[in-house]
Amino acid sequence: MKIAIIGGGSLGLLFSYYLGIKNEVSIYTRTKEQAEQINKNGVHLIKGGIAQPPLKVSAAAIQEWQGKEEFTVVAVKQYQLPGLMDELKMNARNSILFLQNGYGHIKLLSEITAPDIYVGSVEHGAVRANEYTVQHNGIGVTRTAVYRGEAHLLRELPMNVPDDFPVHLESDYKEMLIKKLVVNAVINPLTAILKVRNGELIDNPFYFEIFKQLFEECALVLGLEHKEDYLQNLMTVCAKTANNHSSMYKDIENGRQTEIDAILGYLLELSISKNIKAPLIHNYYHCIKGKEQEREGA
Amino acid sequence: MKIAIIGGGSLGLLFSYYLGIKNEVSIYTRTKEQAEQINKNGVHLIKGGIAQPPLKVSAAAIQEWQGKEEFTVVAVKQYQLPGLMDELKMNARNSILFLQNGYGHIKLLSEITAPDIYVGSVEHGAVRANEYTVQHNGIGVTRTAVYRGEAHLLRELPMNVPDDFPVHLESDYKEMLIKKLVVNAVINPLTAILKVRNGELIDNPFYFEIFKQLFEECALVLGLEHKEDYLQNLMTVCAKTANNHSSMYKDIENGRQTEIDAILGYLLELSISKNIKAPLIHNYYHCIKGKEQEREGA
Repeated sequence: MKIAIIGGGSLGLLFSYYLGIKNEVSIYTRTKEQAEQINKNGVHLIKGGIAQPPLKVSAAAIQEWQGKEEFTVVAVKQYQLPGLMDELKMNARNSILFLQNGYGHIKLLSEITAPDIYVGSVEHGAVRANEYTVQHNGIGVTRTAVYRGEAHLLRELPMNVPDDFPVHLESDYKEMLIKKLVVNAVINPLTAILKVRNGELIDNPFYFEIFKQLFEECALVLGLEHKEDYLQNLMTVCAKTANNHSSMYKDIENGRQTEIDAILGYLLELSISKNIKAPLIHNYYHCIKGKEQEREGA
Repeated sequence: MKIAIIGGGSLGLLFSYYLGIKNEVSIYTRTKEQAEQINKNGVHLIKGGIAQPPLKVSAAAIQEWQGKEEFTVVAVKQYQLPGLMDELKMNARNSILFLQNGYGHIKLLSEITAPDIYVGSVEHGAVRANEYTVQHNGIGVTRTAVYRGEAHLLRELPMNVPDDFPVHLESDYKEMLIKKLVVNAVINPLTAILKVRNGELIDNPFYFEIFKQLFEECALVLGLEHKEDYLQNLMTVCAKTANNHSSMYKDIENGRQTEIDAILGYLLELSISKNIKAPLIHNYYHCIKGKEQEREGA
């Protein structure tokens, strides 16, 4: 299968490598320089600390993407998506999969005319080491679901990936994204502000109090039915990734922009539109925005 | 005047030095070792980075205190006060001044039979450098007020201190302590968790949002009339101490116990007893308790 991957961050490189093993992948990056680096060196993967054989992948700047591939994976951060909308509206024509966190990008998808639109939720841990190298630290799964159209390419995809990069097809895209949103809304800001590993949120009884309160607010604002299932999933993720530092923790530590707008920013807007008081969501949203501001002020 | 000072922490040493210039001071410390060090070396003061001449002060372990001095200053942390109550109930007989932060200790004072009980609020910045040396970093004032009895010793005190260690007499002990409590309840936990200097809370627009919300909760729980005055005072303190790290920031950084129970712990209990929702007070109380727990777990 011919696959386009848009975005040269950690997820873009990760998907280029794993999908590139059994498919013909083209990666489209924001800068021409990164595309040149990838064309010259291939994509490098470091898995569990061990360098894998480099993989040859064709790369070009995003302006070159014309939507001719059967399948396009959009692997940019949610806050980068608005800047890509002109290209997407013009060129998206076959099947397209969006891997953004949060739920706020869903309203953008209706503006895209491609017949099959899919959304995904990535549970891998990956860090970009340089312009063509990605470290795959936490092996997980990629969950996918149909937003509009037919699932046929999502049914094919699991046969076209290696065994250690599983892709699951889920039936309800909302539930899938909201489950991930709840996980990100609680674990990411708390670990980034308290400067702790994920597991500390359930092991430290004082932090666990906050964890439960923030979850309750998210559940209320989202109007979750069966909220126990979401809490159970949240706690399972926390326990499974106990020794990890969350992506937002690392973004703050490294002075990078975070995905807070896609996560708590979305929930804060939702709470305002529903006229629900959400003091902890408000608090942690402003804590993270303040940390980002400190970096800009410095 | 013969003055007893109970407590060999930063405030105990600071008051021993400044009150010892014009009075006969005895300092009573928790350990015999510290008393021996002070008897041997005198009390040393470093003011604005410059070492002042050491001052000879008589020191003994707290068990030696019999309340014979005309005036006793209790300069221990609020969380240490319950452990001193037996001695205080037995020996307090003349005039006694309590310098604790918070408001929770007020209920203990009624158990003490001394005729004149005063409370104070200290606005100096001081750090203990070793068992007999204190650094006086932020020059401020000491506010005092009558809790029970007559103010006569509080009227004498300002004449018996050097000009650079002013003591003011306030008319309303509740207002005085609550004003300080509000300052401590907002500035201390926020700076300790966000890891910023005091001024950042008003300079960073995102942190200022949180600052205002936490103040509003404190005002609500305390039932403050004229809350604008308290907010104005809070902002003035923040601006005046913009470059300082708060005491709670430093306690957390150095792995020491904080005064959180006397400050947000008191407000949290009050919110529960009044059945007022206080999500931010609850949140920051648990953040700081969790930080203290991290240290114990480590």
